[in-house]
Amino acid sequence: MFVTFLTDFGLEDDFVGTCHGVMKRIAPETEIIDITHGIQPQGVLQGALVLANTVPYLPEGVHLAVVDPGVGTQRRGLALRSGDGRLFVGPDNGLLIPAAQKLGGIEAAFELTNSEYALEPISATFHGRDVFSPAAAHLANGIAVEDFGPAIEADSLTQLDVPQPDVSDRRIRACCLYVDRFGNMQLNLTRKHLERLGIEPGVQVELELATERYYAIAARTFADARGGEIILYEDAYENIAIAISGGSAAETLSAHSEVDVRIKVAD
Amino acid sequence: MFVTFLTDFGLEDDFVGTCHGVMKRIAPETEIIDITHGIQPQGVLQGALVLANTVPYLPEGVHLAVVDPGVGTQRRGLALRSGDGRLFVGPDNGLLIPAAQKLGGIEAAFELTNSEYALEPISATFHGRDVFSPAAAHLANGIAVEDFGPAIEADSLTQLDVPQPDVSDRRIRACCLYVDRFGNMQLNLTRKHLERLGIEPGVQVELELATERYYAIAARTFADARGGEIILYEDAYENIAIAISGGSAAETLSAHSEVDVRIKVAD
Amino acid sequence: MFVTFLTDFGLEDDFVGTCHGVMKRIAPETEIIDITHGIQPQGVLQGALVLANTVPYLPEGVHLAVVDPGVGTQRRGLALRSGDGRLFVGPDNGLLIPAAQKLGGIEAAFELTNSEYALEPISATFHGRDVFSPAAAHLANGIAVEDFGPAIEADSLTQLDVPQPDVSDRRIRACCLYVDRFGNMQLNLTRKHLERLGIEPGVQVELELATERYYAIAARTFADARGGEIILYEDAYENIAIAISGGSAAETLSAHSEVDVRIKVAD
Repeated sequence: MFVTFLTDFGLEDDFVGTCHGVMKRIAPETEIIDITHGIQPQGVLQGALVLANTVPYLPEGVHLAVVDPGVGTQRRGLALRSGDGRLFVGPDNGLLIPAAQKLGGIEAAFELTNSEYALEPISATFHGRDVFSPAAAHLANGIAVEDFGPAIEADSLTQLDVPQPDVSDRRIRACCLYVDRFGNMQLNLTRKHLERLGIEPGVQVELELATERYYAIAARTFADARGGEIILYEDAYENIAIAISGGSAAETLSAHSEVDVRIKVAD
Repeated sequence: MFVTFLTDFGLEDDFVGTCHGVMKRIAPETEIIDITHGIQPQGVLQGALVLANTVPYLPEGVHLAVVDPGVGTQRRGLALRSGDGRLFVGPDNGLLIPAAQKLGGIEAAFELTNSEYALEPISATFHGRDVFSPAAAHLANGIAVEDFGPAIEADSLTQLDVPQPDVSDRRIRACCLYVDRFGNMQLNLTRKHLERLGIEPGVQVELELATERYYAIAARTFADARGGEIILYEDAYENIAIAISGGSAAETLSAHSEVDVRIKVAD
Repeated sequence: MFVTFLTDFGLEDDFVGTCHGVMKRIAPETEIIDITHGIQPQGVLQGALVLANTVPYLPEGVHLAVVDPGVGTQRRGLALRSGDGRLFVGPDNGLLIPAAQKLGGIEAAFELTNSEYALEPISATFHGRDVFSPAAAHLANGIAVEDFGPAIEADSLTQLDVPQPDVSDRRIRACCLYVDRFGNMQLNLTRKHLERLGIEPGVQVELELATERYYAIAARTFADARGGEIILYEDAYENIAIAISGGSAAETLSAHSEVDVRIKVAD
């Protein structure tokens, strides 16, 4: 059985390694796939979007995710089963919802309360180690998800506020969800939004960030633009993104996640 | 058999991957758990403390650790067996000692001199690859620790200088051992030290760093404080730490590891 | 079967984890060894040199490498077999060549065109996920390299421009290929180049970087110099490098990769 693992723990500290250790003590045969531990600290929305993007590419099994600014509060710990039979473990703060929805929706949800499947005494600040990793490992061992605690109504789960674009026939007001290592800026848009304005590969567009304006070209890939040209393209996860051929869009545009981006067809 | 692996190598270069490769060539069935490779370059004390913190959560096997500013000098390479039967491999600079002491003490120590279990010719600068990884892999294969070289008296092993706090009934002079990704500052204190001053959850305290004074509250967890409030708490490894609810203590307090921290009950 | 994996993807994003997921869905029994994902973005030369340095230390199997600024252009995807029977997968931009040459040369080369062994539809920007990882996983499953597409003549493969030093009996003009985490600067030199000038351990040398001059000592290892002294040494991969005993050479010399370095025996 596979456990996939996504957090905001980073790799400088021992947090990820300790969770691996905890899981391996409980489930030595389980294989752990690290999706990433580079989610920005306490970036629940970013974590949820990355998990939803990647989960179709991951083997079936248990998807463990921990981005948990509410650790130590009354927020619940969750084990979910999605419509296609995959299992999810993490905090009840919305982190797991977009991924589960992509895989057939939430078929059943349980609160992690059974202390038999936790490391006692549970610390006040590291439920990744003491609650979520043990739960994922016991699930991987074949313990039924129903055994972890009481069932929860799906509509009582905490939902995320995913920022929605404002789209008219003339212009789009979007925002940047995420900047990757290459400086590519993922927007909260899909191809459908661009098509409403008639933006398709080859069309010149005008971007406005803060008070600055830039010309860009809608393109299929980096190679369709000249070096240094700004492009608007559908990325490998079917999100619309801004890139610069041979450079970093985020750097050139002095942009970061959460920045507003206005888009229209260039005059 | 598991090998756990902790270094200051970072992940930007190939050093960690090369050591994995070396171990897998010798012991293909062994599973390697990376604790962290983010120890600050040549941070022997930090490495030793992180290893001691995490080792109770790791599966039994061989604990390989390399933070090795003395590579190329006469410092010895070690294989240790702890009282509970775990094995440790690394340089004789104190790195392994606190962890071994936590697991029943040092039952036996051997110098790594048997060239049969090293990669020859041994380079002058990368004993992680040429001496320590091969030793860990051969141990994982079941070679007896006695076969690696001559026995060493435990009291001849290099010890670390762990900075001790100065604690009176009125005030504590501590120091910061370590700042994590979230900006939490781990101090060289345990709950016992705070209790001597009557500091327990709910008590207001005064912190002095450099010449700046801050008010903080002793708390069980982040959630017990208001956003932005400084808290003093027992972390998940039972060390006392400074955090800021919803923020980075190290950033707000302009602090780094090794900074002095004075603590007293607020007037 | 092992797959080793080297990229410029970094670990902040999901790219590496997603590729692991793709491989594990196709080849669940395969074990993946991450060499590094810290190659500088689009640093094909650095990636090629690191792969060539490390491959002798890695177990046999499939060596997957992706540093791919040409993704989306007409550059070909490759599967190579080296003279000693190892397999390589990656883009046709020179990345794989130095490593394959080190292992017996390129015995056969094939273009990755068989869509049966790719994830369809292939995205325009993430061939690591859609082309190269699936190819590596199918190779690890035992699919013959000949099945991936048409054979390519070895002399039609894209070659890298590895910067060559200019060496006379009196002075060397070299360049820095790579700076590692410890600030050690790897040069495009081997011991043979130094020997032509009579530089061997113990000899004082003069280094010129930009317009600055520094005195250094040729040494076997860091320990042969006093703290703070600059040394010129043969590193663990048999490349000549500059280091500072107990410090960072790159920082002290304000140097970075690609900087020119002139070397002569000190007067």
